[in-house]
Amino acid sequence: MQHVVQPLTPETAAPRKGWIALVGAGPGARDLLTFRAAARIYAADVIFYDRLIEPELLDLARPGAEKIFVGKEVGAHSWPQDRINAVITAAALAGRGVVRLKSGDPSVFGRACEELEAARALDLPVEIVPGVTAAAAAAAVLGRPLTERGATDRLVMATATCKPGDPAPDLAALLTPGATLALYMAVQRLEEIAAQMRAAGLPGNLIVEIVASAGKPGEQILRTRLDRMAWDARAARIKNPAIILIRHPKPAAEAAATAGTATAAAL
Amino acid sequence: MQHVVQPLTPETAAPRKGWIALVGAGPGARDLLTFRAAARIYAADVIFYDRLIEPELLDLARPGAEKIFVGKEVGAHSWPQDRINAVITAAALAGRGVVRLKSGDPSVFGRACEELEAARALDLPVEIVPGVTAAAAAAAVLGRPLTERGATDRLVMATATCKPGDPAPDLAALLTPGATLALYMAVQRLEEIAAQMRAAGLPGNLIVEIVASAGKPGEQILRTRLDRMAWDARAARIKNPAIILIRHPKPAAEAAATAGTATAAAL
Repeated sequence: MQHVVQPLTPETAAPRKGWIALVGAGPGARDLLTFRAAARIYAADVIFYDRLIEPELLDLARPGAEKIFVGKEVGAHSWPQDRINAVITAAALAGRGVVRLKSGDPSVFGRACEELEAARALDLPVEIVPGVTAAAAAAAVLGRPLTERGATDRLVMATATCKPGDPAPDLAALLTPGATLALYMAVQRLEEIAAQMRAAGLPGNLIVEIVASAGKPGEQILRTRLDRMAWDARAARIKNPAIILIRHPKPAAEAAATAGTATAAAL
Repeated sequence: MQHVVQPLTPETAAPRKGWIALVGAGPGARDLLTFRAAARIYAADVIFYDRLIEPELLDLARPGAEKIFVGKEVGAHSWPQDRINAVITAAALAGRGVVRLKSGDPSVFGRACEELEAARALDLPVEIVPGVTAAAAAAAVLGRPLTERGATDRLVMATATCKPGDPAPDLAALLTPGATLALYMAVQRLEEIAAQMRAAGLPGNLIVEIVASAGKPGEQILRTRLDRMAWDARAARIKNPAIILIRHPKPAAEAAATAGTATAAAL
């Protein structure tokens, strides 16, 4: 049997197919990137990134790759989501490999949905490359897990900012005994959040840990309690990006901790 | 100025200091490991791992490193946590570099607390190396984020298994409109969970996505709904490790989806 091999000429070659990868860059430290994320960055013809991305991550791009900043400059607005959708799909339609580099994990408060839908509406190949989310990085910096068996057996991730027009989320209702609450992008609203939680009857002495810029230059750690967190964060000049961890241990774990027994709930 | 360099002899050399790293291996695929995790694996003298770790990750160890399985063999029990604590601290006290390799992220349902406490009680250096948690890997496999602006703006991670003696968690209470619930280690209890949620008044048509062995050989994806999930998972022979994602979109997003408008809530 004879195989006829068609020579690849500009005429017979299929047009180069573009692609889009929504890549989680992790919390910022270069060595908390995954191998898959690094491979996509290196494979990209063009990388769209925002202000939370550390510049050294862009050094992983191959020479000649285009790097486009779509975040907020000082005193200016960030690109509207529609415009980002339009430019990433236009680049992929032109046959280019596109990386949309997002801080943390693209699936958690990453606005990935809009970009996925825009790509799929045009039948462009699109994937999510998962990353280390900011709460996990904060736990690593603190040397303390997000869940502690017997004390906290669930983890609630929430953001204090939501879609314009939506009612503010009832964060107090999420913080029942046994929960750790990880708040993203909430530094500007600590006073309001503390007041809401206190009004809902949550104890003022719940332990609060705030980690800003986890693992990056300018990292800050603040240990405080619910009724003092807004004041302490202001005094420490805590800035976004920060993760706010509020723990509400189960009563048994709390009682044991108060009694001086070594438990998972004790700091 | 003259520098006197003390020659390093067995007498003058400080005793080699052991260390322990609780390392997140991510969901299993080798390229979803972080660079830091790979570096710790390569630096280790001894690696303790369990059954959820893919063998190819252990190939990253340097030649001569010891690899010790502490998980559950078929028909046998896994090592008790106390015994794991004892062996990892003993190895570090003997001056060895110890990696305790955990599936996913060590901070999320990773029993990291006990090991951290055991190390600190002996004044041994110990760190957490964060990883990609299973829910993020499941979202990447599905090509669908865990939070979708306007539809779900919080993510609740919970496990159906808790400390023996603790009351079963009220999972239905966690799944309020606007939440995505990611259940870890819950495949064996789907019937009970569905019954509890239906009894609490949750709609039977909530969308459920189950991803087993995300990104690993034997990966399975099941799309179903709350009132059929237990039956469908049994029929599909879904096995742990699996992530169960149950979404309860906000009413507005749901109404828009029903009306046929393209929204973040639509599958």
